[in-house]
Amino acid sequence: MKTSVYIATSLDGFIARKDGALDWLPGIDSTDTPGGEDYGYHEFMDSIDVLIMGRKTFETVLSFETDWPYGNKRMIVLSSQPVSIPNELSDRVEPSSLSPVKLIEKLSAEGFQHAYIDGGITIQSFLNAGLIDELIITRVPVLIGSGISLFGTLEADIKLQHLQSQSYPNGLVQSRYRRL
Amino acid sequence: MKTSVYIATSLDGFIARKDGALDWLPGIDSTDTPGGEDYGYHEFMDSIDVLIMGRKTFETVLSFETDWPYGNKRMIVLSSQPVSIPNELSDRVEPSSLSPVKLIEKLSAEGFQHAYIDGGITIQSFLNAGLIDELIITRVPVLIGSGISLFGTLEADIKLQHLQSQSYPNGLVQSRYRRL
Repeated sequence: MKTSVYIATSLDGFIARKDGALDWLPGIDSTDTPGGEDYGYHEFMDSIDVLIMGRKTFETVLSFETDWPYGNKRMIVLSSQPVSIPNELSDRVEPSSLSPVKLIEKLSAEGFQHAYIDGGITIQSFLNAGLIDELIITRVPVLIGSGISLFGTLEADIKLQHLQSQSYPNGLVQSRYRRL
Repeated sequence: MKTSVYIATSLDGFIARKDGALDWLPGIDSTDTPGGEDYGYHEFMDSIDVLIMGRKTFETVLSFETDWPYGNKRMIVLSSQPVSIPNELSDRVEPSSLSPVKLIEKLSAEGFQHAYIDGGITIQSFLNAGLIDELIITRVPVLIGSGISLFGTLEADIKLQHLQSQSYPNGLVQSRYRRL
């Protein structure tokens, strides 16, 4: 089973301000950009069959004043505490307190093939467990000075292979890496 | 007077390990790569006429087992404490405890036109003073988990314009930004 991160960060490496705010991120109000640039998002989403994110990221997504952005995709919300899942999402969103290793084993046994790992703490725990295969990082040309970091401390260096980078007219630079 | 940063970071944003080690950085033992790739370093160095770095970065450079890498370029070593400058460098290296604003005023009055701002604390203080015009950041495809950060806290967001990115066969990705 393959695991990927697809995320935007500020140039100083933050995925959100300390309070979760994404105001510095262009186009956060709409992940759908008809006739416009989607930074490979839909192609990526079409390639995954399950999302794994932490409770805080899940709650941030719920707070967006848009429709549920993930269609009918299966989603696992990682949390050691109970998670409040709206009724209309209970057919596809499921809480879990499994470790990254156990969760990937379970999802793999269920036939899932490609997981989207999202949210700072979740990404960091999967990286530390050696369970991130691919990273697609889009850098926004702004320094915000503080916030929630994409990366955290590691037990050992993680060497990556750069696959491809591309820049967009609005200054976003997207790089793809895979684990060596 | 123009000010530029030219620096390599790990993918997680560190310019050195906590003890200053640069072992994760390819080619640190030789900034000169005859017939090879220099990531635009010599072209950049030819464009600057003065270097400004902090005491710790200066001491790190002195510890390299190579010849002095900056030729006859004028260098200012920023420090609130006395700095020990080897005799053979005293004709070109000068300590200073001036603020970024005062230092740039002084160097500008002396006719300098393009300063290379180097070292984590120094870069951060110049950024906070609004005194960085250009950033050339080269990302090494490795996560090291902890170390000395390129960027620090800011009094306000700093928006940048992306000018150009290019990737190298060894996976380094270099992006140029200028202040908006």
